[in-house]
Amino acid sequence: MWRVTEADLEAIAIGAGILGTGGGGNPYVGKLRARQAIREFGSVDILSPEDLPDDARIVCVGIIGAPTVGNEKIPDYQSYYALRALEAFVGETATAMLPNEIGGTNSVESFVPASIARIPVVDADGMGRAFPEFQMKTFFTYGVPCAPMALADEKGNTTIISEAVDARWVERMARALTIQMGSAACYAVGPMTADQVRRTAVPHTLTLARDLGRAVQQARNVHADTTEAILNSCGGKVLFQGKISDVERRTTGGFSKGTVLIEGTRADQGHKMTIEFQNENLIAWMDGNPVCIVPDLICIVDETGEPITTELLRYGFRVTVLGFPAPKLWTTTQGLAVVGPNAFGYNLEYSPLKG
Amino acid sequence: MWRVTEADLEAIAIGAGILGTGGGGNPYVGKLRARQAIREFGSVDILSPEDLPDDARIVCVGIIGAPTVGNEKIPDYQSYYALRALEAFVGETATAMLPNEIGGTNSVESFVPASIARIPVVDADGMGRAFPEFQMKTFFTYGVPCAPMALADEKGNTTIISEAVDARWVERMARALTIQMGSAACYAVGPMTADQVRRTAVPHTLTLARDLGRAVQQARNVHADTTEAILNSCGGKVLFQGKISDVERRTTGGFSKGTVLIEGTRADQGHKMTIEFQNENLIAWMDGNPVCIVPDLICIVDETGEPITTELLRYGFRVTVLGFPAPKLWTTTQGLAVVGPNAFGYNLEYSPLKG
Repeated sequence: MWRVTEADLEAIAIGAGILGTGGGGNPYVGKLRARQAIREFGSVDILSPEDLPDDARIVCVGIIGAPTVGNEKIPDYQSYYALRALEAFVGETATAMLPNEIGGTNSVESFVPASIARIPVVDADGMGRAFPEFQMKTFFTYGVPCAPMALADEKGNTTIISEAVDARWVERMARALTIQMGSAACYAVGPMTADQVRRTAVPHTLTLARDLGRAVQQARNVHADTTEAILNSCGGKVLFQGKISDVERRTTGGFSKGTVLIEGTRADQGHKMTIEFQNENLIAWMDGNPVCIVPDLICIVDETGEPITTELLRYGFRVTVLGFPAPKLWTTTQGLAVVGPNAFGYNLEYSPLKG
Repeated sequence: MWRVTEADLEAIAIGAGILGTGGGGNPYVGKLRARQAIREFGSVDILSPEDLPDDARIVCVGIIGAPTVGNEKIPDYQSYYALRALEAFVGETATAMLPNEIGGTNSVESFVPASIARIPVVDADGMGRAFPEFQMKTFFTYGVPCAPMALADEKGNTTIISEAVDARWVERMARALTIQMGSAACYAVGPMTADQVRRTAVPHTLTLARDLGRAVQQARNVHADTTEAILNSCGGKVLFQGKISDVERRTTGGFSKGTVLIEGTRADQGHKMTIEFQNENLIAWMDGNPVCIVPDLICIVDETGEPITTELLRYGFRVTVLGFPAPKLWTTTQGLAVVGPNAFGYNLEYSPLKG
């Protein structure tokens, strides 16, 4: 167990920005929100899944919507409202919170309701990275119920998806509601048991994000190579180095979708990389060949090791593109059915990132 | 109190088709569904609002969506599922059902859950006609809460709008969900008290619809003028007689919207009537001048007095257009703010139908 400090939030913002593969919402916004909650209501404890009491009732919260919108329409306490609506619906009180994904602002969104409710956050998440759609969680992929799910906006609207055919239907209905709510809202789903979390969540990812962020900070402090620090901390490889020459981006259907084109520099001079994204980076093509395919992680960082989320990509940025292997829960047949390239409409086989 | 017979359903289908002003869903479909439920689970009693016990808990149910879709995707028992979801949410059991509107299939939709749950239906509704949007109910206009509201589809999806800024927000969220559910779903809202129903519902409209339908049937049986029978039964006037020369209709945003053009015959030879609709007929223009304006009722019938709902309008039909004054609850300032021409986007003042 560890107690979150403001320094931890700085480190997590970097680490979860990298693991978020361009999505999960702006990490800077998340850091400020979590810091504000901690200052106002007190810090939160991060509890390893192994240390959960067997009778724990764990609720997963997250922000749903387009990061382009989430950057401007910043949530207040609606993940707490969603938690309370879910608790009222099931007639139980949560004893711990769980991040929906380890990406951007979503990696620390659970700190807000946890701080207000004075309960710990589990050191785990439902993706081991970030993904754009609700059903793309290890929990549901491995049999945890996807409903009830509560959704709240900042205006005072609260809805509960009480029964759904499957998690894709929850996504479909919640996305339609989110668009009406202004393309950014907060949800709570569960509660889950300790056993369910231990069996189906990606463990220790908050610690991973914090340690990854610290490694980048330390490299910056001594003017060392931040890319090397990242690769030393969590594996992976450099996919490409270059300058952004074009960004095509649209906020559509409650998502930020688009493509970024990068012209190679240094060792990649004369080559081109195209990365397609739907909130998160999905596929990296080098000179027309796929070199990193979802669910493997594609992360764009600047020369200080700072991750650049998809809604902040701009013409002219000098960037390094990194690839990391996906958590093992995603590379099974069941996992690939939910988050493999076909799930995003690509007629492409997943092949693991080459070492 | 009266107990519904199959003959009553035949009569209500005609009467509620007329009062539905083109909307409320196809009355024929509603008749078949209600008949099936009554045959399977037993008939239902129609209870006057005055006869409700003071501790009654009354739930209003209805179908939401585009009638063009509702004609093909016929509901099964999802208004009953919506009722049960609402009851589970509030922790109370309904003691009576209430029709959302006295129009088309919706006028008898409440018979289905009432028959299954073996509870009576209140002889009243929330519109005294049909309207396309959820917030257009006398209940909400006169202060009854618009949430919680449960929405269910035929696939197994159930949602609850537990809190909403206002009834327009319920409409907005429920419509977005309905579109995902396939543009036709069923809802339950309440429960209301006996006092709320007596104070805010339009009373005795099931009896009105039945008696109006009987008057048309009797006129048909003796080859008398069915138009005259309608006007004798519930007031109103003939607005126009003619032949449909064009129908423009689209299923959009979860509604059936469009315009019908009628070329005058007989006394109206040389004149033209245009009627604009959004599920229901909204404004009738004669030679470019508005002659009947929402919330007043515009009904299109054929020469046998059979009402023609907007999704069944076809080129070549010989029709009579009738106008009826709106229920008094709608012609107040509060009422017109919710269902007057401005509420439908028209820059037009309401002026009551001329006698």
